Amino acid sequence: MSLIKTLSQNAAIAAQTLAVLDEQVKNTILLDMARALRAHSDEIIKANKLDLANAESANMGSAMLDRLTLNNDRIESMAAGIETVASLPDPVGIQRDLGDRPNGLSIRKMRVPLGVVCMIYEARPNVTADAGALCFKSGNAVILRGGKEALHSSKMIASILQKVLEVYQLPPALITVVPDPDRALMMELMQQREYIDVIIPRGGEGLINFVTDNSKVPVIQHFKGVCHLYVDKDADLEIAMALLLNGKTQRTGVCNALEGLIVHQDIATAFLPKVAQALAEHKVRINACQQAKSYFDACNVMNDDDFGQEYLDLEIAIKQVDDFDGAINHIRRFGSHHTEVICTQNDVTAARFQRTVDASVVMVNASSRFSDGSELGLGAEIGIATSKLHAYGPMGLESLTTEKYLVSGVGQVRA
Amino acid sequence: MSLIKTLSQNAAIAAQTLAVLDEQVKNTILLDMARALRAHSDEIIKANKLDLANAESANMGSAMLDRLTLNNDRIESMAAGIETVASLPDPVGIQRDLGDRPNGLSIRKMRVPLGVVCMIYEARPNVTADAGALCFKSGNAVILRGGKEALHSSKMIASILQKVLEVYQLPPALITVVPDPDRALMMELMQQREYIDVIIPRGGEGLINFVTDNSKVPVIQHFKGVCHLYVDKDADLEIAMALLLNGKTQRTGVCNALEGLIVHQDIATAFLPKVAQALAEHKVRINACQQAKSYFDACNVMNDDDFGQEYLDLEIAIKQVDDFDGAINHIRRFGSHHTEVICTQNDVTAARFQRTVDASVVMVNASSRFSDGSELGLGAEIGIATSKLHAYGPMGLESLTTEKYLVSGVGQVRA
Repeated sequence: MSLIKTLSQNAAIAAQTLAVLDEQVKNTILLDMARALRAHSDEIIKANKLDLANAESANMGSAMLDRLTLNNDRIESMAAGIETVASLPDPVGIQRDLGDRPNGLSIRKMRVPLGVVCMIYEARPNVTADAGALCFKSGNAVILRGGKEALHSSKMIASILQKVLEVYQLPPALITVVPDPDRALMMELMQQREYIDVIIPRGGEGLINFVTDNSKVPVIQHFKGVCHLYVDKDADLEIAMALLLNGKTQRTGVCNALEGLIVHQDIATAFLPKVAQALAEHKVRINACQQAKSYFDACNVMNDDDFGQEYLDLEIAIKQVDDFDGAINHIRRFGSHHTEVICTQNDVTAARFQRTVDASVVMVNASSRFSDGSELGLGAEIGIATSKLHAYGPMGLESLTTEKYLVSGVGQVRA
Repeated sequence: MSLIKTLSQNAAIAAQTLAVLDEQVKNTILLDMARALRAHSDEIIKANKLDLANAESANMGSAMLDRLTLNNDRIESMAAGIETVASLPDPVGIQRDLGDRPNGLSIRKMRVPLGVVCMIYEARPNVTADAGALCFKSGNAVILRGGKEALHSSKMIASILQKVLEVYQLPPALITVVPDPDRALMMELMQQREYIDVIIPRGGEGLINFVTDNSKVPVIQHFKGVCHLYVDKDADLEIAMALLLNGKTQRTGVCNALEGLIVHQDIATAFLPKVAQALAEHKVRINACQQAKSYFDACNVMNDDDFGQEYLDLEIAIKQVDDFDGAINHIRRFGSHHTEVICTQNDVTAARFQRTVDASVVMVNASSRFSDGSELGLGAEIGIATSKLHAYGPMGLESLTTEKYLVSGVGQVRA
């Protein structure tokens, strides 16, 4: 059997043991994993130095180098992350009652692990620990296929976690690092429908599309984040300004940053001059529609087809609309099903917005920057889904499980 | 734009209107659809005669001919099915509270439609009405790609349903029949990731595999049903016999029929002679393992690798095991994640079986034949998933929805 088929099959077999492990045992093991990462931080940093040396000789950019770098603080933060996962409630085994049938059969559903989760990602060695812990807690084996840039670091982190598994007589295949970043092997991984239950790619749009196009295993995707703030005619304009500045300027390179501002025409004259001043102070480049352009000194004028860009920078698109429906239509056309925000003091309008807008997170009077697993109370997140099947939005432990039916009777047969 | 892209895009646009339609309006429309099918039964039967004539000249087999045939009784049953769907609770809009965050943000989840559901199926014209009603009630547009055998019937049924939509000023694209069964068009349909949210193929294993291998849209699969009854050492043997006979002989060509019997060695001498007699009376062919063969007069002796077949006929595989773990291991190796049954009076053993066995439906003291959407109380079913992502087991209305996050604040921003 090939390397990839063997490791996939081993993960699937290992997952059977983990699926029925008690929550307390899993938590004890997770706490041991956190301790082990701290105890072996020197070895992790040593392995990471090999990756960094390779990266420098390959002229890696500084942002990517930064993401790749591990130090004591970052190892401490990985360990603390695993402790957080240990403290989260275990979704596995949770039952919900669907009631009794007229023939006396009792019907329930029980949460169970998916089985084998495969992560495909780029140069972030911390994903190895984060995804390892989340998958373990939710009863899943994980196959980690990281980029070649972080391979030494990932292998070292995984081997430390595996040694903890061995202490508890659990198979190391529960946390498997694909040892060779060859693309042909990744292609083979994406064919293992028999053993792998889901692939979660994390990285740029190119990687996501490549996996989606080539995988025979189901994929949960996170495409881009083109998030809008709609300032309604009934908005509190001070709140609107706070949401705008926080969403656009607090951090720009992230998927939950604001990329578009939509303004109701009734408050445009009151709000847009302030917007022009505040965004100028923050050096935000303006792309404005025909109706809004006059409020801005220097701006790029947008035609109707120009909207929908993910700037990931100090840059924003501004659209004035006639009414609520205009805002909804703009979001339908240019949103990316990630996060959409309304600012309004009108509860009916707010409820209508939350019901109507098709995005994984729909907010009222809150910054789009809260669209994140830990901010929403999931404790940790394995990714954010912008496709709808299985999960939609930030994915926590529950997203790594499914439900089976339990039927209990006293000998009923079908007539 | 091509035919397929156009109809997919139209379905996606139409779905936006339906997503926010009130439950009562949807129910009124569904009841009108049921009435319309009854009122136009002559036209449906006329269209069906065209399909039947083609089928006869193509020498279609009698089982398939039977499935294709529509008469007044079957149209009545389609109409009654739509009325049942109208009576089911609407999952769309249901909220669950995830609590408040320390910063005061309130977090909820709300059920929303998937968007556009595509059914790919063979010669069953009733799927057009059943899937049409289920998707409509759950707020989804549906694209129906049936086999060429039933095309006249499907088109007629869809056009009757569409006329009802038009009365309520709803777009007919909510229920779209692909007008041409050409395979190249089906291939194109499976590439419409931008517009179609899920494909549910229904039919033989060949069709399912073809769709899974070629679709760029996520697929929910129903592979085969290799269902087992495990008769534990603490079983009530009368109940065990009733479950065996019902599971194996009540209807054989269905996915929830029993294909395997597993017997604990401690009750083999008490149970297997009765099994031999009863199955002989029902003319069930026996395939038995080395340990069990001596109980049967005429049987095919099975080696360890021979198990796991889906007979869909009066034929069964019988395996004697040393203990509970032997049963679990046999199911792990040869089960198909569909339905597994234990017969036991021991509650601890029963609970352990339900927790451990990885199948979409795990039963205690009940016939596998109950593994069906309407028997489990879903009212109607769109399919049975044996893959785990998004849905696992019989899929009702809830399976045609997903959940988005709702976040409500008073102007909170991220620090």
